[in-house]
Amino acid sequence: MPAYTKKSFPLAKIRRFLEPGPTILISSAHKGETDIMANGWHTVMSFTPAIVACYIWDQNHTHELIRKSKECVINVPEFDLLDAVIGIGNLHGPADKFAQFKLTAKQSSKVGAPLIAECYANFECKLVDTRLINRYSLFLFEVVKAHVATKPQYPKTIHYRGDGVFMVSGPSVNRKAKFKQVNL
Amino acid sequence: MPAYTKKSFPLAKIRRFLEPGPTILISSAHKGETDIMANGWHTVMSFTPAIVACYIWDQNHTHELIRKSKECVINVPEFDLLDAVIGIGNLHGPADKFAQFKLTAKQSSKVGAPLIAECYANFECKLVDTRLINRYSLFLFEVVKAHVATKPQYPKTIHYRGDGVFMVSGPSVNRKAKFKQVNL
Repeated sequence: MPAYTKKSFPLAKIRRFLEPGPTILISSAHKGETDIMANGWHTVMSFTPAIVACYIWDQNHTHELIRKSKECVINVPEFDLLDAVIGIGNLHGPADKFAQFKLTAKQSSKVGAPLIAECYANFECKLVDTRLINRYSLFLFEVVKAHVATKPQYPKTIHYRGDGVFMVSGPSVNRKAKFKQVNL
Repeated sequence: MPAYTKKSFPLAKIRRFLEPGPTILISSAHKGETDIMANGWHTVMSFTPAIVACYIWDQNHTHELIRKSKECVINVPEFDLLDAVIGIGNLHGPADKFAQFKLTAKQSSKVGAPLIAECYANFECKLVDTRLINRYSLFLFEVVKAHVATKPQYPKTIHYRGDGVFMVSGPSVNRKAKFKQVNL
């Protein structure tokens, strides 16, 4: 497991780590219960405020914990956590997944949900819109604090294709010179 | 530009190409006008029906064309189309982007919007929920027909990080044996 040094990261730029579409781990807590779920159904929706939408199936224990606590942490794991991500994805009910998968629950600074120390980035989130939960299982979060590893520059993320297959992130290419306007 | 041989693809499995988070090209048409936009803010929301949500900024011409026509095509470009993707991303207003970027508009089978022949996969979409457009600029599409290249098995996709930098998709790893249940 990597031991990262992390720094606070500008909220308007967190799309750097989410827009590429990694499988994320969502950690949550409510009244002493915690949960972690693996999730690949999410999208950025706004830079400022930094809004991220996550589809969270109502059969997943996380759904209930976030609905009640109105908070969570979006954690971005690297490839070395692949087995833990799969193990977490296999479990939908209540369980101490931190202990079971040897992950460290670290106190967040702005939300009650713990962050996962072994993940490259941690985005502390507050649920800012509940209107899409009943009909769509869609949770709209505002990221209120971001912690990102100081290195490597970009994480080696995993991207689920279904059917047991993951794509691993490849090289980065910089085409800034070709953009008329560069977004964050 | 690649010349792909494509086959019809099971709708419930299209997450294979969208969940990893590629930058997509959305093509649309209304009353003789066409548009293409580059988009990285999308998420799968359901297997069956195959629902995909896309955030489409209201300053983008595509927003208006899809609102009126209630249809579009989600196209998945490979790395070789990177310059076209950037060029399209630079243009938000009306323009003949097919001609300008030397892309082939091919007739779709179930929607009026043309598909982009040079893309690895084309998902013909009908707008099935307009309730989130005004407030969130979020369009919920049902994919009604999927065309996917017969090879390579997985596309070399591009994933935008912002600030002019793209991540290029890397290798695939198969962990099917570790899954309790494998989704599509």
